Amino acid sequence: MITISIDAMGGDFGPAVVIPGAAKSLDRHPELRFLFYGQEDKVLPVLDRYEKLKKASRFEHCDIAVSMDDKPSQALRRGRWKSSMWKAIEAVKTGDADTCVSAGNTGALMAMSKFCLRTMADIERPAIAAIWPTLRGESIVLDVGATIGADAQQLVDFSVMGAAMARALIEVSRPTVGLLNVGVEEIKGQEEVKEAGRLLREADLGTLDYLGFVEGDDLGKGTVDVVVTEGFSGNIALKTAEGTAKQIAEYLRAAMSRTLMARIGYLLARGAFNRLRDKMDPRKVNGGVFLGLNGIVIKSHGGTDDEGFAAAIDVGYDMVRNSLLEKIETDLQNFHGRRARGGASSDAPGQTSG
Amino acid sequence: MITISIDAMGGDFGPAVVIPGAAKSLDRHPELRFLFYGQEDKVLPVLDRYEKLKKASRFEHCDIAVSMDDKPSQALRRGRWKSSMWKAIEAVKTGDADTCVSAGNTGALMAMSKFCLRTMADIERPAIAAIWPTLRGESIVLDVGATIGADAQQLVDFSVMGAAMARALIEVSRPTVGLLNVGVEEIKGQEEVKEAGRLLREADLGTLDYLGFVEGDDLGKGTVDVVVTEGFSGNIALKTAEGTAKQIAEYLRAAMSRTLMARIGYLLARGAFNRLRDKMDPRKVNGGVFLGLNGIVIKSHGGTDDEGFAAAIDVGYDMVRNSLLEKIETDLQNFHGRRARGGASSDAPGQTSG
Repeated sequence: MITISIDAMGGDFGPAVVIPGAAKSLDRHPELRFLFYGQEDKVLPVLDRYEKLKKASRFEHCDIAVSMDDKPSQALRRGRWKSSMWKAIEAVKTGDADTCVSAGNTGALMAMSKFCLRTMADIERPAIAAIWPTLRGESIVLDVGATIGADAQQLVDFSVMGAAMARALIEVSRPTVGLLNVGVEEIKGQEEVKEAGRLLREADLGTLDYLGFVEGDDLGKGTVDVVVTEGFSGNIALKTAEGTAKQIAEYLRAAMSRTLMARIGYLLARGAFNRLRDKMDPRKVNGGVFLGLNGIVIKSHGGTDDEGFAAAIDVGYDMVRNSLLEKIETDLQNFHGRRARGGASSDAPGQTSG
Repeated sequence: MITISIDAMGGDFGPAVVIPGAAKSLDRHPELRFLFYGQEDKVLPVLDRYEKLKKASRFEHCDIAVSMDDKPSQALRRGRWKSSMWKAIEAVKTGDADTCVSAGNTGALMAMSKFCLRTMADIERPAIAAIWPTLRGESIVLDVGATIGADAQQLVDFSVMGAAMARALIEVSRPTVGLLNVGVEEIKGQEEVKEAGRLLREADLGTLDYLGFVEGDDLGKGTVDVVVTEGFSGNIALKTAEGTAKQIAEYLRAAMSRTLMARIGYLLARGAFNRLRDKMDPRKVNGGVFLGLNGIVIKSHGGTDDEGFAAAIDVGYDMVRNSLLEKIETDLQNFHGRRARGGASSDAPGQTSG
């Protein structure tokens, strides 16, 4: 049994999308249990329509709902201890839930998650990891917007955490990792990126295979399983890719409706177009994963529908089932432990057995 | 008459692409004249095949050709004063040519251009501006990789130069400008980006209309005419968009060849697909423009064909015809002059008439 706590008020549509989404995910994973938090007059009428889901869930009323345009500081001030978003996160802290899913606003969700769950022992800053569809399957890209800038050590920590997530999500035993960089020779790269590359090469970790620098066009190719960068460029890459996909879909739509022949062709090839739409469907890969906190929090797109929200729950389900948090804890401990011992050994080369 | 100096050895294919490309551009703009620099045994046999072009051009032999993987420092050491790349740039400096086009390697071309042409009086660092196809037409995005990082003043200078290029290229009288940023509230933006926004708002320039921050998905939408960012995130955005476009084209190809119905549909809608391919054709918008130097240098994709190289020449032609360099000089002078006077006026409010 896996229990997922859900901020039922999150997202552009609140319970109207969240509840049907949970029902869909429950159909796929009958061992799921849900804890819903929200305003009862808004949540219960919807929940009543899903009998199976209702039986598999518990509901708790919260007066306060964080709005989609609350600033993180406002959200914390208004919503700490009592909002549906806070309660959902807190359930992970108390152990009532295994993971939390919210379609609420990213800044508020991250601020509350940090405040409630705190960062892991060796981690200074959390990251948001996105699942990126590629020509080879799926990659993980982080950080796509938790914090701006990252020093070399933080990039290395992102690499370790991203690789743990790849092992949990796409089930490769030793994921390949690349650092996002630019390809102009000699001005190549920020100092932190170069230094992170050096650290990763030297660390020679058993849990990941560091392949070097990758560039923006490697994202879609799926050159590596995990692409690591700091939050500014990661966020810009993510939104640029989304924007380009929409732009091309728009070109395609315009082209296909322009002449009668094109329209007939479109009808005949409809199956193929549906397949393409499926491939490009942003709902299929909905769910940004907050990494580096003492608990897993999944952020769903705010504007998604029930199918998209179900996908975010599925991500949470996979992360719990594949013990993501434990994987990250072990990997970070091994890595930081080894680094600490490595440091000691160079001072006292005779005492490395401990 | 507009004279364009060309590094005939540049690019993956050298004269085999450069010469036919120039011939194509000459067909479109008969007032063009060319100065070709390169190794005579490689260039002349190709040039001999294009009689009209041969009449409209002059050729100068150079022993040295910068290779596609020379590092900038190597290229400078080996190729300064004498390589075909250097000679083509130098022709702009001496006034023999109005602009220079090369498909040679970006780092070397930028290093030589800086060394030969020097940056403009008020400019610390040059930028590479890309022409970005959008749902509204075309936008200009800079810097896509000349330098990593930029302070607020440099971002403002990029804005002024990008707006001048927009006036030259897409012929809008007061282009809209946005600063590329991330959308997560409160952690929003690097300090330099925020400060640049403040400077642009306060400067209230007549030559551009500053609209505030934009995000990655605004690039494809064409929300503003000019998107300004530093070279690291700009390069990543550019390559991510190129990669995503290729990825979707690949999905489309796979979908359309999967079933007989899809293949028939494809045949009927072929005109529409060609239109789409046309829209997505990266050759159509080939040509990165180096801004901030005492001369205009156009960088063509190294791997492009003659059609793509002709497009890069067309960009150079437009830039010269529409007096890009003079526009930039005037705008920067007005801006920096005004800023200097503005600064003086706050110290001595009675003496602002000069």
